[in-house]
Amino acid sequence: MSKSHLNIGIIGTGFMGKAHAFAYRSALAAFPDIPVPVMKMIADVNAESAAKAAHQYGFEKSSGNWRDLVNDPAIDVVSITTPNTLHKEMALAAIAAGKHVHCEKPLSPTLSDSEDMVKAAAAKGVITQVGFNYIKNPMLKMAREMIAAGELGEITGFRGIHAEDYMHDPASPWTWRIDPSGGPGVIADLGSHIIGMARFLLGPIASVNADVETVIRQRPADKGSSETKPVLVDDIARLLVRFEKGFGGTIEANWVKTGRQMQLGFEVEGTKGSLAFTQERLNELSFYKAGGNPREKGFTTIESGPQHPPYGGFCVAGGHQLGFNDLKTIEMAEFLGGIASGRAAGPDFKEAFEIQKVVEAAIASSRQGAARVRI
Amino acid sequence: MSKSHLNIGIIGTGFMGKAHAFAYRSALAAFPDIPVPVMKMIADVNAESAAKAAHQYGFEKSSGNWRDLVNDPAIDVVSITTPNTLHKEMALAAIAAGKHVHCEKPLSPTLSDSEDMVKAAAAKGVITQVGFNYIKNPMLKMAREMIAAGELGEITGFRGIHAEDYMHDPASPWTWRIDPSGGPGVIADLGSHIIGMARFLLGPIASVNADVETVIRQRPADKGSSETKPVLVDDIARLLVRFEKGFGGTIEANWVKTGRQMQLGFEVEGTKGSLAFTQERLNELSFYKAGGNPREKGFTTIESGPQHPPYGGFCVAGGHQLGFNDLKTIEMAEFLGGIASGRAAGPDFKEAFEIQKVVEAAIASSRQGAARVRI
Amino acid sequence: MSKSHLNIGIIGTGFMGKAHAFAYRSALAAFPDIPVPVMKMIADVNAESAAKAAHQYGFEKSSGNWRDLVNDPAIDVVSITTPNTLHKEMALAAIAAGKHVHCEKPLSPTLSDSEDMVKAAAAKGVITQVGFNYIKNPMLKMAREMIAAGELGEITGFRGIHAEDYMHDPASPWTWRIDPSGGPGVIADLGSHIIGMARFLLGPIASVNADVETVIRQRPADKGSSETKPVLVDDIARLLVRFEKGFGGTIEANWVKTGRQMQLGFEVEGTKGSLAFTQERLNELSFYKAGGNPREKGFTTIESGPQHPPYGGFCVAGGHQLGFNDLKTIEMAEFLGGIASGRAAGPDFKEAFEIQKVVEAAIASSRQGAARVRI
Amino acid sequence: MSKSHLNIGIIGTGFMGKAHAFAYRSALAAFPDIPVPVMKMIADVNAESAAKAAHQYGFEKSSGNWRDLVNDPAIDVVSITTPNTLHKEMALAAIAAGKHVHCEKPLSPTLSDSEDMVKAAAAKGVITQVGFNYIKNPMLKMAREMIAAGELGEITGFRGIHAEDYMHDPASPWTWRIDPSGGPGVIADLGSHIIGMARFLLGPIASVNADVETVIRQRPADKGSSETKPVLVDDIARLLVRFEKGFGGTIEANWVKTGRQMQLGFEVEGTKGSLAFTQERLNELSFYKAGGNPREKGFTTIESGPQHPPYGGFCVAGGHQLGFNDLKTIEMAEFLGGIASGRAAGPDFKEAFEIQKVVEAAIASSRQGAARVRI
Repeated sequence: MSKSHLNIGIIGTGFMGKAHAFAYRSALAAFPDIPVPVMKMIADVNAESAAKAAHQYGFEKSSGNWRDLVNDPAIDVVSITTPNTLHKEMALAAIAAGKHVHCEKPLSPTLSDSEDMVKAAAAKGVITQVGFNYIKNPMLKMAREMIAAGELGEITGFRGIHAEDYMHDPASPWTWRIDPSGGPGVIADLGSHIIGMARFLLGPIASVNADVETVIRQRPADKGSSETKPVLVDDIARLLVRFEKGFGGTIEANWVKTGRQMQLGFEVEGTKGSLAFTQERLNELSFYKAGGNPREKGFTTIESGPQHPPYGGFCVAGGHQLGFNDLKTIEMAEFLGGIASGRAAGPDFKEAFEIQKVVEAAIASSRQGAARVRI
Repeated sequence: MSKSHLNIGIIGTGFMGKAHAFAYRSALAAFPDIPVPVMKMIADVNAESAAKAAHQYGFEKSSGNWRDLVNDPAIDVVSITTPNTLHKEMALAAIAAGKHVHCEKPLSPTLSDSEDMVKAAAAKGVITQVGFNYIKNPMLKMAREMIAAGELGEITGFRGIHAEDYMHDPASPWTWRIDPSGGPGVIADLGSHIIGMARFLLGPIASVNADVETVIRQRPADKGSSETKPVLVDDIARLLVRFEKGFGGTIEANWVKTGRQMQLGFEVEGTKGSLAFTQERLNELSFYKAGGNPREKGFTTIESGPQHPPYGGFCVAGGHQLGFNDLKTIEMAEFLGGIASGRAAGPDFKEAFEIQKVVEAAIASSRQGAARVRI
Repeated sequence: MSKSHLNIGIIGTGFMGKAHAFAYRSALAAFPDIPVPVMKMIADVNAESAAKAAHQYGFEKSSGNWRDLVNDPAIDVVSITTPNTLHKEMALAAIAAGKHVHCEKPLSPTLSDSEDMVKAAAAKGVITQVGFNYIKNPMLKMAREMIAAGELGEITGFRGIHAEDYMHDPASPWTWRIDPSGGPGVIADLGSHIIGMARFLLGPIASVNADVETVIRQRPADKGSSETKPVLVDDIARLLVRFEKGFGGTIEANWVKTGRQMQLGFEVEGTKGSLAFTQERLNELSFYKAGGNPREKGFTTIESGPQHPPYGGFCVAGGHQLGFNDLKTIEMAEFLGGIASGRAAGPDFKEAFEIQKVVEAAIASSRQGAARVRI
Repeated sequence: MSKSHLNIGIIGTGFMGKAHAFAYRSALAAFPDIPVPVMKMIADVNAESAAKAAHQYGFEKSSGNWRDLVNDPAIDVVSITTPNTLHKEMALAAIAAGKHVHCEKPLSPTLSDSEDMVKAAAAKGVITQVGFNYIKNPMLKMAREMIAAGELGEITGFRGIHAEDYMHDPASPWTWRIDPSGGPGVIADLGSHIIGMARFLLGPIASVNADVETVIRQRPADKGSSETKPVLVDDIARLLVRFEKGFGGTIEANWVKTGRQMQLGFEVEGTKGSLAFTQERLNELSFYKAGGNPREKGFTTIESGPQHPPYGGFCVAGGHQLGFNDLKTIEMAEFLGGIASGRAAGPDFKEAFEIQKVVEAAIASSRQGAARVRI
């Protein structure tokens, strides 16, 4: 029987821990039909941070030990927002305890670890979700629907990119983010978002030819240090892709794209129309429809509004705009709705695993001179 | 003594009631130093709506009678989100009961009613705020600081607009929005936002010449009705303004600007630089600084990030973007912070009254052939 | 009988002299049906400049005395591109000699001088044109047609601006441009363009309330000089306007708008649609049509192409873009075509005079506290 | 000895023939130091078209036989603007006659034919140029200089595209453009532009992995015909590239990109800055410079002006904008200037041949599953 309330536990109080907290707190206001999320417990390796977060985000209790949270029988739902080397252990423990699990992306540093997580969740029958928040945007939901409905005609090409610049400065020191024990570099961190978006819009990718490279090969060992350490993970990944449906495209992931803070976007065209989107203007979608009055030929900049569900849950009037935390709210509300319905809203662990397969295929391709690798 | 918690009561469950609920729920997560807002009671003339809203927004109780809320001694803070003909009675009652009051704009249909509200609040010493949410945008806070710091040099001109299209269709029927008992038309509804923004950035307006007109003079009495009713409030207002600091500008309010959903913006220039902003891209601010390398002459599109407080309370990474509800969260957090500090963050009732004076002066000017009216 | 060839004479070799030369040289290639323009003579007060220009622009001969040109019986057409204090004398002489006259704007420093020019041309029956080049843009021709065809429904409002920054720096010295003997300041220089554009699109202006001000009241007498001279002409003009057709609008002219190089544009809306244009992107026109699929609501950015005459005379393929000199070519071709057909393509001297009346009315209004002045 | 005048002959009166005519007619006005171009002869397979063009473009004579033009001893310069299957024969004849030759791109259908042309020109010592007009843009000249001067730091990545939609409609019939005797499809037609632009900005390309595909595999044999013909040339080409300088990038050519008329552009980034450009807004260049005030972080939209040579030859004031025909004028003026100086301005036949090598390498790569092919 579906529960009317779900007790939430969040592991981690950093960037994503906070984003999850905002989202759970707002979910019911925007989505009246989901179970009521109850802010039950927040855990962090630093007990003081956990206590502070509990106060600030309105959780009933906190712990410095994530196992307290996972083992608490009152908890229904676990959000894992810790560094990705920790995801597997936490997720497996939560699954074993029968919790529904939301895990930030990427699922884990290696494909085999991720596969273990997929299998464990499936075996236990819990609902899972992975933090591919950007596709929760109402404009992307509409884009997907338009494509599926044939409004673009036969799709002929795609280009996707997720580029930011947080690693662009060669003077930026070595960080956990580029520790190879955490898995690949930008192709996992940002690449998984744009690969996931491509799949969301257009379906599976059949093959890749990829060039995955480290651009800044040495970084200061510490901030301001004159000692350097070699960088062993990738800074830029460029992919030629073929989709299973037959058309091709390109995908890029890049964390040294100087000046870009959130260039996550795509262009897709078909025989009858085109769409263009960038997260830099997340409340807009550019649409071109062939065959109109030639004198009026051009792209239309569609602005988000209540005619683009689930925008209306946030605001009844168009043009008021959603922000990042609203996308995260949609994500969490759909996760909770999935728990209620018994059917994951997605992207679930399985989908995250499929995305990771593309990541691994790209790396394999790159090692062979960008030879074609089937997925 | 400043309270660690503040018990919140919201009157109204519509567009703005919901926005207030979102905002109070998120305020502490984004602003850790404010008093904890406690969702205490929500009231609506429809008791069922109130009960539903209480469940959805997490309020402890609800009522079909706003007086229950105002008279509840547990309530510290009252948010008034009802139609503006009701503001005065509710606000005066809340003030009389010693509550701090947030009221949606415009404060009331008439200047004298608003003045009564200002005086009552002052006499009682409660903290007030009025819902001019758009100026809570981090990009506008920065704009104001840049202007104040002289980064634009001597200001030479301003042009502001708030245009939408929700009344553009002559077939749209008569609604409460155009009932003259609610006060003026677009100049109060949208004009107050852009007048408030102009004052926020540049200080008081000294005089206006204005053309305030009804464009669609008859509307169907009801949806689809062939009977029409005359429209007695304005659809478009155009103002020439002189600021107290000496420079001039133009301001427009327009609710029949076909195709526009949120064209609320401005351009301001000085001898050393210029700024341009539109709420249609609320996470961007265009800045031109004179005197650089001529070869690189152009406007810079600044993207919002944690370097623009209080963005960082919502997200530690730049480029992730705030939405409308986040602006409302800043507004409510500042209101609560003002209660804690004993000093209104503004815009308070007094400021709303000053804005309304400009509105009334514009209407007076228009009646005299747009003759100059001092404020 | 219409001539197959027209012998061209240009007076002045500066900014506009060169623009006319480019235009006459390209006109026949873009407009095969006009008379063949023959580069006959170019005159400049500096005979050496005239000789150099003749060589560079392909004129048969040159002179240091403009009267040589006006008195040469071989010349059919005279282009006057000198400072506007000189226009009247030259134009009257050319008209007296039976030449068709193109004169740069503004026609002359005073309304009465302009009226003399209008009358002289009419009496002699020569074809005239004035250099309002921006309205020659194919995108503006389309805009005008769309408005005339009712594609925007009933027009409800207009806002126009022509702002640049060539006078924005208080350290920029006094120049001929601000010598009051040349007539008003920005309202004549840039204001005439946007007033002309408003008339081109929407018809006559019936009244104005205007604020016309000098912002930088003293300027260095010379470059780098510590001595200053008072500025007696306007830097910014802001107008509330009422069109004869009944709707209102605003118009601004500004040459101290720091950072702007060519912000000449407008927005116009009606009950069924809207248009927006800026010369900063002169090959684009934004169009919104009400009543479409709400999910696709937004402005379409139309790109120029051969479907927008007379673009096709320059290029058979869309998206290749016209530049400023191409607009000037259209202008001159239409002038020559007008000579051939015996009917001025416009804007002719009469239209320039009508524009100047609005300029003068604005100045008169400003002197009376922006009181309404009928035109 | 350098000639003061150069007698021009153009072969072809279509799209490019006209563009050359415009350009030669305007070249001296914009570039006073080049030899005077004299419009001598124009030839077209259709003698009537040639005669008409001679009249319209101001040529002294015309011919229905291009050999008349090539064999005319008075002709100094030959522009070849015919279909590319004809380029080789015409160019070799012109070279043999000692003419300087400008040829539209691509040079010829095959690499070996192009090589013959390169060798013939070198042997004869004539000056050559090929119609890569877009890189003549002042904004691209500046971009190249900025890159060369290290203003972007170490280059880390590039992405270029040239996409249009003139073949996007499956109902568009078979045309000469897709006759394989003319060489490859879009990769030669549009790809050569963006490959040339990449080389212009960043130097030689060392290797490619490419996917070059025919998307619309059958087209009507004729307009409206129900009979179809197989399409044997490519519609889309996607390349992963490595530049000789070590960094990588992507390049796309696409003539089925629905809705695009001139999406020719690039983004390039380095450790210290980034540039972005699209021909859709050819008078703008976006520039990001790292290390400024973080509060002002963003891309600057630089507008073209006389500070960007050779813009000033066309207009002394910024913001007035160049169009396509102006770019062509720069191209032709540089060609004539190169003849005067004895040193090709480029891109010459040799450069066109280098570009074609990349085209051929991409096709070869695609045939091998996008395996890496060195150039």
